[in-house]
Amino acid sequence: MAWQARDPAFVERVRTSFERQRFMGTLGARLGHVAAGEVDIELPVADALTQQHGFVHAGALASVLDSAAGYAAFTLMPAGAAVLSIEFKINMLEPARGRAIVARGRVVRAGRTISVCRADALALGDAGEKLVATLTGTMMCVEGRNFSG
Amino acid sequence: MAWQARDPAFVERVRTSFERQRFMGTLGARLGHVAAGEVDIELPVADALTQQHGFVHAGALASVLDSAAGYAAFTLMPAGAAVLSIEFKINMLEPARGRAIVARGRVVRAGRTISVCRADALALGDAGEKLVATLTGTMMCVEGRNFSG
Amino acid sequence: MAWQARDPAFVERVRTSFERQRFMGTLGARLGHVAAGEVDIELPVADALTQQHGFVHAGALASVLDSAAGYAAFTLMPAGAAVLSIEFKINMLEPARGRAIVARGRVVRAGRTISVCRADALALGDAGEKLVATLTGTMMCVEGRNFSG
Amino acid sequence: MAWQARDPAFVERVRTSFERQRFMGTLGARLGHVAAGEVDIELPVADALTQQHGFVHAGALASVLDSAAGYAAFTLMPAGAAVLSIEFKINMLEPARGRAIVARGRVVRAGRTISVCRADALALGDAGEKLVATLTGTMMCVEGRNFSG
Repeated sequence: MAWQARDPAFVERVRTSFERQRFMGTLGARLGHVAAGEVDIELPVADALTQQHGFVHAGALASVLDSAAGYAAFTLMPAGAAVLSIEFKINMLEPARGRAIVARGRVVRAGRTISVCRADALALGDAGEKLVATLTGTMMCVEGRNFSG
Repeated sequence: MAWQARDPAFVERVRTSFERQRFMGTLGARLGHVAAGEVDIELPVADALTQQHGFVHAGALASVLDSAAGYAAFTLMPAGAAVLSIEFKINMLEPARGRAIVARGRVVRAGRTISVCRADALALGDAGEKLVATLTGTMMCVEGRNFSG
Repeated sequence: MAWQARDPAFVERVRTSFERQRFMGTLGARLGHVAAGEVDIELPVADALTQQHGFVHAGALASVLDSAAGYAAFTLMPAGAAVLSIEFKINMLEPARGRAIVARGRVVRAGRTISVCRADALALGDAGEKLVATLTGTMMCVEGRNFSG
Repeated sequence: MAWQARDPAFVERVRTSFERQRFMGTLGARLGHVAAGEVDIELPVADALTQQHGFVHAGALASVLDSAAGYAAFTLMPAGAAVLSIEFKINMLEPARGRAIVARGRVVRAGRTISVCRADALALGDAGEKLVATLTGTMMCVEGRNFSG
């Protein structure tokens, strides 16, 4: 799907907002690829992110998938708008381990108010990349309130 | 719903497993109430958990809700079993802010292999408690593999 | 939760819209209890609704749960508004069989544009009622377009 | 993704089970393409399937998407197994109208017990095909009980 951004400054807008997400810093997540309707977030695997069996916690996966999906939607929103996650659902497919997780957020439907996105979590390891989780979520464009980004 | 735990040592089992979830420590989350089919997790609100508008990130909410739901299911599993999250869906209802978040995980259906749980996130602030997010998830009981807890 | 309807004619509005849902007639579903934030739909179990093992098809459950949830949200919307389902998720808890299914839709969060509802499917049989499925969904209030209801 | 079916008679198995789903007949749905990990179901649009604004009811979409996803998983299960839907989530993207809906179920992850599938609903109309809804669901393989298919 080829999307067209309305705001030519969308990459800068995403980077600025991502840096304000203190939680991404807490996780050690970094913004990767940003294009119209597409945002990747990279999460180096670390002990600080694990659940009881040593795999990456589903909540940590959900966090980067949600941000990747939300920012994918945000690339297509007008300047001055804010993005809010209304809901998301995640299916865990395989235990998440390896060197890093890449969350690939992609817009499925871009509406004026409501957008729907998908985000896949790929675990990068010695054996290449493996799909470990997938998310679908609904993102809302909010304009004219006290916050943006 | 009144549930009956099969393993009398379930509280200890939950506490031991929770302490092995390094990610809960990273978030600053603490185990609260534990009873048959019921687990609460408390998350003090901190800057380290915020999204771009200063609210608690949906992923941080999802993390404690998922753990609360999973451990609620785990209370009813036999000794030696492990719990895995298969999927969950979360609806964000209000911006999450305040002093602390309490995630209340409750079992809705307890099966031999598959359990379904609900978890509500309540924000505790000056004006009392407010429901800010709700999750439903599917938890799987795994026995006889290389891990437990 | 006690909700307050803004439009005193909400019961009539729900009944009129329900009757326009041709699909409810196809299923044999009937509108039951209607109150502010609460709508029940009754679905007599019939061979025409079954899946391959003779249980009620998950899609038939989803249909009445979605309508019950949507109309629960609709009770709180202003006159002239239309309700649209944005998304829903359903967990199947037990095989659905018996004499009838009752779908109980309840509002969890009522917003100006976005409402979140829950709906439980209870199977009524000789042994009383049993929870067989549960849904959470997001409903949107649409005003000023070419349709209402 | 190229899947390999374990049971060479999987197409026949899907067709037999589909015909036993009385609800598919009630909807007027027909089985289309069947391959390893892939099942399409076609639903001619009819007044009997509509919601209050004349679009296809979200529950009717969910019904064919759930069956398409479930049968996609079923193609990869061993002979004698039964498939059950554990949960699914559907996002409605556009009003569903046109000549027919095609539900395209595809396996995302095939496990011994748990499979995860995606299904897209495409509306076929004068202007070509349009994605109107998307589902992700968890399907369970049940062996050795009193039912199969």
